[in-house]
Order: sequence, then structure tokens, then C-alpha cells
Amino acid sequence: MSTVTQQIADYVLRSRPLDIPEPVRREASRALLNIVGCMLGGCRHEAVERTIAALDPFSGPREASVVGRTERLDVFKAALVNCLSSAVLAYDDVHLATVIHPSGPVASVLLALAERNRIEGTELVHALALGIELQCRLANMLAVAPARTNDAFYLTGFTGGIGAAIAAGRVLRLTEKELVWAIGIAAARAGGTRETHGTLAQSLVPACAAEEGLFAALLAQRGVATSDTPIEGRRGLAKLFSEGNNLAALTERLGEHFELMRNTLKPIPTGIVTHAAITGALELAHEKRPAPEDIARVELTVHPLCLELCGRRAPANADEATLSVYHWVAIALLHRRVSVRFSSDETVRDPAIIALRERVEARTDAAYRKDEAHIRIALRDGRTLERHVEHALGSIERPMSDAELEAKFLDLAQSALSRERAERLLAQCRGAERLPDSALLVRGALPGSGEDVNRA
Amino acid sequence: MSTVTQQIADYVLRSRPLDIPEPVRREASRALLNIVGCMLGGCRHEAVERTIAALDPFSGPREASVVGRTERLDVFKAALVNCLSSAVLAYDDVHLATVIHPSGPVASVLLALAERNRIEGTELVHALALGIELQCRLANMLAVAPARTNDAFYLTGFTGGIGAAIAAGRVLRLTEKELVWAIGIAAARAGGTRETHGTLAQSLVPACAAEEGLFAALLAQRGVATSDTPIEGRRGLAKLFSEGNNLAALTERLGEHFELMRNTLKPIPTGIVTHAAITGALELAHEKRPAPEDIARVELTVHPLCLELCGRRAPANADEATLSVYHWVAIALLHRRVSVRFSSDETVRDPAIIALRERVEARTDAAYRKDEAHIRIALRDGRTLERHVEHALGSIERPMSDAELEAKFLDLAQSALSRERAERLLAQCRGAERLPDSALLVRGALPGSGEDVNRA
Repeated sequence: MSTVTQQIADYVLRSRPLDIPEPVRREASRALLNIVGCMLGGCRHEAVERTIAALDPFSGPREASVVGRTERLDVFKAALVNCLSSAVLAYDDVHLATVIHPSGPVASVLLALAERNRIEGTELVHALALGIELQCRLANMLAVAPARTNDAFYLTGFTGGIGAAIAAGRVLRLTEKELVWAIGIAAARAGGTRETHGTLAQSLVPACAAEEGLFAALLAQRGVATSDTPIEGRRGLAKLFSEGNNLAALTERLGEHFELMRNTLKPIPTGIVTHAAITGALELAHEKRPAPEDIARVELTVHPLCLELCGRRAPANADEATLSVYHWVAIALLHRRVSVRFSSDETVRDPAIIALRERVEARTDAAYRKDEAHIRIALRDGRTLERHVEHALGSIERPMSDAELEAKFLDLAQSALSRERAERLLAQCRGAERLPDSALLVRGALPGSGEDVNRA
Repeated sequence: MSTVTQQIADYVLRSRPLDIPEPVRREASRALLNIVGCMLGGCRHEAVERTIAALDPFSGPREASVVGRTERLDVFKAALVNCLSSAVLAYDDVHLATVIHPSGPVASVLLALAERNRIEGTELVHALALGIELQCRLANMLAVAPARTNDAFYLTGFTGGIGAAIAAGRVLRLTEKELVWAIGIAAARAGGTRETHGTLAQSLVPACAAEEGLFAALLAQRGVATSDTPIEGRRGLAKLFSEGNNLAALTERLGEHFELMRNTLKPIPTGIVTHAAITGALELAHEKRPAPEDIARVELTVHPLCLELCGRRAPANADEATLSVYHWVAIALLHRRVSVRFSSDETVRDPAIIALRERVEARTDAAYRKDEAHIRIALRDGRTLERHVEHALGSIERPMSDAELEAKFLDLAQSALSRERAERLLAQCRGAERLPDSALLVRGALPGSGEDVNRA
């Protein structure tokens, strides 16, 4: 009788790409496009610059590209840095039920391995889908006490390493026993707190999870054994962080039900919990076109987690702006669209934004869903504009369209690639399942042409 | 008004070597001798071999020696591997109040840096003392629910990275702000479960903590900022793992009371919780010299944690033997001494040991302290030998003497060094505070002469 972890390993190794239903594979491809876009958008962030400066002198064989940049690093550091880039703008994907960001750690490890181990595009998308799927299921299991986990524990740190180990284990062709060990090594180190929230170190927890997942797979491949029950055992994650009563979330209808379909792509570069309020602001801005100077007051009603995680009243810089619903509601009303460019320090200091932001007020209603909000705009002439948003843009009920996703990708890519290169890469990501070698995708994500990159 | 973490950083950076009382410095030097011995003893362990095999192909600049071996690795990997070596035999030091093993992560990082950054011996011992001290205090803070933490959480994983970051931060001459960040980065990743207990991966949690501590210090040095309250903040370790009600343990009488003095060196290569029972067996074996074949039954009474952590009835191999009070009581009665050599697979399969081990029985008494045990030997002729051990060998009340510690060191060193080299290194460790350059100590811990080691 196999353990829960053995069942997972068995599923991961037996699954063939075409066993994954077409809509799920399509969603995995969209997740890939989205996360590569986020890497491109984040790859010049100060946290990335500083982290590369710290780690570059210690790099091993420079076998892996850093997405959007000219440096090459060893696979561990490339995985870490790519994941960091993917997360720093808080624009990545999110599994709404648990607020984890599953694609970053998984995709980063796969891209880091792509130039070292030949991985066909179809394999890459498949491994990405498996890693995301198991990571979301693991989060569902752990998130039985969501108030505690969402607020203080950084759940991506608990799940990302395991998801990445699973994806790496798959493309490295581990045996079932080794894949159990890889999960075991990653699980033993799973963790992370949100105390770094709003600081430069904010995205290190997922970034390190990527590296830990790769580490786990490579050690397991060399026979560093663990127990067969790293998750469900008496000292495992399930017992410690979910009272062990929700193990079924891991394996129930595995291969039939896909939790990946509840993973959503973010249309706005800020915490997902703000999206409903910003959606309302965008809708009223488009439909009613209130002039900013006519707006006397904006009143938001949101889920408590919106202010808990993204309640920065007066963000001081770009990083804090990603955690401010006030900033983004002002952006939506002033610019009538969102873009990563509005996360800049410059925009944060823009007097027009500040003036409008200061007129935004928010109150919470615990009866609201996380993707629900109400916005009421009081105009100086006494009129009010009002909108109740049942489901935010980017929610499961209102996913980004392919066109919106592609516009987001190009918006992000411009900080690293020429328009021409960005469009070429967009096409490669869209057709990732048909790429003979996913290294092409990595090379397409570099600022120089793939061919003239310095291969160390 | 400074935060708790700022107070810690301020203390660490202001402290001068001679501010540490002489007995504390001496104990830190003994901890150094002990942990280098453990690295030498463990450096050929299968877990170390497999981990090096997995990581070596990815090494960056080979600036650091691996204690007891000829490989050189980048500083991160050397720190990880040295700590792994120090922990695999379960023969390292232990802070009894919390069952953490503080020296491994701290010393491993310092030794990894010693060939890269010139560190005088006095600085090394000082940084080691500070790292151990804060790590023990942190464990005291976290261990308010000891049953939960000791059993399932791997507390060295929660504290080791922070201790290592503090020591690294000190020798890397971080500013106070940077040291707070280093603690913050390490704290954000703190964690680890004991589900790998008894497997090859068992010591990866502390080993990775060493690497994480170094990573934290190097990133902080490059300005990767965190909050000023990584431990005590509302999402910090204190709130998450100790209900935040024991913060005083971190800073109370810092610089006056030294928790390091409650860190003990293990005289027996097995879990500390077994030591009382084995002490009783050694004492009776020495004093009464019962012939093994005359022993009908051995009855132990021990603290519950002894069987919880080290209750393997029939260990199958050397790793499981370190978790078996039964094995070591049999060893003590048969050989009348302990040595790492008795952890071998061969000894585990020795019929004489097995026959005696099978006659050992243990029951628990929750009223016992962890360093207390009772042993009763029923002889075949009807007589009984009995001993109540109030304090185990290696407990705070009965610390190892310098002579016992040196014998332990030489016992451990023989798996890596010639007797002559081992004795020279012993002298260097004893006089570590007077070494002009602690790189000498690292080079002295290599199997070849320091001079003919291949410098990559």
C-alpha cells in the first residue's frame, strides 16, 4: 500500500502530456507566458540587482541564462534569480483559494535547467502543469487555517520548493523512489514568513523555494534518502501546519480534477486582494470618465485581507505601491488603465496621484469575498458614481482574455526586450508546447540575440 | 527606541572579544574543538559523499576547504557540507534546554569564510561565541512549547541560519542596519521538520541553515533590506512559533548571562536524551564488570523524549544506531566505552551486540529530567545491579573534561587525519584564540598538508 507521497510521485511520473486535458494544458501555457512576462518586467528591479551583485561572485558553471539580462549563472542561482524577478512586481499568478503564487518557483527551475538538460517544449509545459497542480493541492491542504497562514506564513515558501522539486524531478527523470525523496528534502525545509512584506527582501522566500526545489531534486537523484511520508508522516507538513486533517486535498481525483484551473493570472501589478476595488475604479473611469479634479471622495468596501496585505495608505516607493490599494485606485481613476509603469517611484511621487489617493477611503466587510468590492465616488457637484463588483478582473469568473494577457506580456517585456524581440518571444511562449527545445525560449528571453550571448 | 533585533545587532557589533568572560570564551573554544572533531568524524559519511557528489558539479569559485577532505568548494557549499559533516554522527553539541545543536551552522560558516576573508583566531572564537549565544537565546524564546517543537519541528533549522548570519555578519563587518537585515533574511526562511529523522537526509536541515545564514549576511551586505522587526514583528518568528510571549529571552542580561554555558558537548555519538541511560550502563560496566553472557535483562527508565527520539528497537544501519538507546546501552555493557566506531554498520550487525541489545527494555517516566535515568541489570544468577543517574555524562552538571574532549576529538579525527596531523590540529584548536589567521586551522583540518592542497 503506497503512501500519499508515493501516490503523488507515481502520478507525476506516469502522467503523459496528453493525459492533461487540453484546457488545462492551455492554462499551463498561459501561466508560462504570464510568468516569463513577469520575469522580464521584474528583472531590473533593485532587489534583483542587489541579489545578483551578492551572488554572482560565487556562481558555479554559468550554464543558465537569467531571463531578460545578460548575466549567466549556475542553475541554482539562475533559478533563484528568475523566480525573484517573477515575484518582485507582485504581478505573477495566484491561486486565489490559498493566495500562493505557484508558477514562479516551478517555471524558474525548469527554465534554469532548459539549457543544461534538453527539455522539449511539450515536456516543459507538462512539468510546469504538474508542479503547479501539486503545489496548489498542497496549499489547499495547508490552508485549512487560512487567516493564520495567509497573514503571517508565506505559503508559497511552504509549497514552492515541493512544486519545483516535482517539476525538476520529472524533467530529470527521477525514479519514483527518488521523487519521493526529492519531495521529502523540499518538505523538510519548507517554510517562510511574511515579515519581509513590503521590503526589498519580500520575494526572497519564493525565490529561495525555487532553489530549494532544485536542490532537493538533485540530491535525491544522488540517493539522499528521506522517509516515504515527508508530507503525511507524524512530523510532516500536514501534521504541523494543517492538523493533518485534509490530506485528501493532495490526491483526491488527481489527474481528473485540476486545481490549476483555479490558478489565476493577475491583470494588475498589486496584491490580488485589491483587484476587485481596482476593477470597480477602472469600470467607472471608463464608463463615466469622471475628471480627477471633480472627485471629492472615493469610498471602498473590501474584504479584510485587502487592507491587511495591501493597506499602505501612503506608499513611499514602488515596492510599497504594490501593496497599496489606495495608489492603484487613484491610478485607475486618473489613467483609466493599469501598467507596471505606474509602480515606479516617480508615479508614487506624482502630485496628481497623491492628491487623488488621499481622497480614497476604505472600510472592510468580512462578509465580502476576496474578489468582491464596492466603490462609491462622491463628485464635487453632489452626484455619486457607484459600482458593486461581484468578481474582480483576473478572478476565476472573469479571467484575463488571451488578448489582455498578451498586452500584459508586452507591457512587462519592454523593460528588458525590444518590441520585436518581445513579440517573437510572445509567439514562442504561445507555442511553447511545439518547441523542439525549450532552451530556445530561454534564449529568446535575453536582451541580445540568442546567438550572440556570451556562453561562459 | 530600538527594536529587539536592533538591540541584538548592536550588541553583536559592539562586543569585543575581551568583553566575553574568560570561562565563556574557553567554552566557545571547546565548542570549536568539539565541532571540528565532529566534522572530521562525519566527513566520510554516506550523506556527505552523496551531497558532495550532487553539489560539486555546480560549485562556484573553490575558495573554501571541506574539513577532512581534499575537495574545495565555493563558500556556500563548503558551509553546507561542513555543517552536514558536523551533524551526521549526532555527536555534536547540544543546548539541553531546547535540544538545538548550535555550533554546527555557526562554525561551518566561519570556517568557510576563513580562507576568503582573513579572520584572526580571536575574531573567529568571538564570532562563534556570539552566534551560539544568540542562537541558544532564540531557541529559548521559541521553545516555549517544547513538546511540539522538539518532537516535530527541527529547532536547529529555526535558529541555525540566524546564528550563522550573526557570526558571518560580525566577521564580514556589516553595519548595524545590515546585520538587522541579515537576521531578517535568515528569519524569513527559518524552518525545518524532523520528518527526515533517521534517514540520510536527517542532517540537511542544519546544513542548509548554515548556507542560509551565509546567504543572508551576503545579501544584507549588498543592501537587500528587510523590516527592523524580523523576529518580534507581527509576522515574525516570535509570534508564529512562541506566541510572542517570551521575547525577553532574546535580550535579557545580554552580555552578562551567557546561555552558551548551558550548551553541552556530547560524550556519546547518539541523541543527547539517551546519555543518562548510557552513563548508567558505562558506570555499572566499569565498576561491576558484568560478563555480557551473564546478563539476563537490562531495564531502563528514561524521560519520554529518549524513546520518542531514540527508541529504535532494532537499528538496521549506522544511522539508525545513532537513534537507538538499546544499541548504545549494549555497546556500553559490552565494550565498557563508547566510540564513533561503534556506530558502524558492522557493529550494528555484530551478533554479540544484537544478543545483548535484545535483552534491553525501556520504560518512560515523565517525571524524570532529560538527563536522568535508572538502569537495573538482572543477572542470570539472580543478582541485580542497579544505578540511578541523576545527571548524565555531558550534562551541565557533569560536563566532559578537557581530557575527555580531546580523546573524543582524536577518536573522531582518525577517520580523516593521521594521528600526527590530528594532534597538531588539536593543539591549533585549543589555541584558536591565539592563531593569527584562522585559515591555518582550516588547512590543518585537511588530510594532505595545508601547503600541497590543490588551490583551484
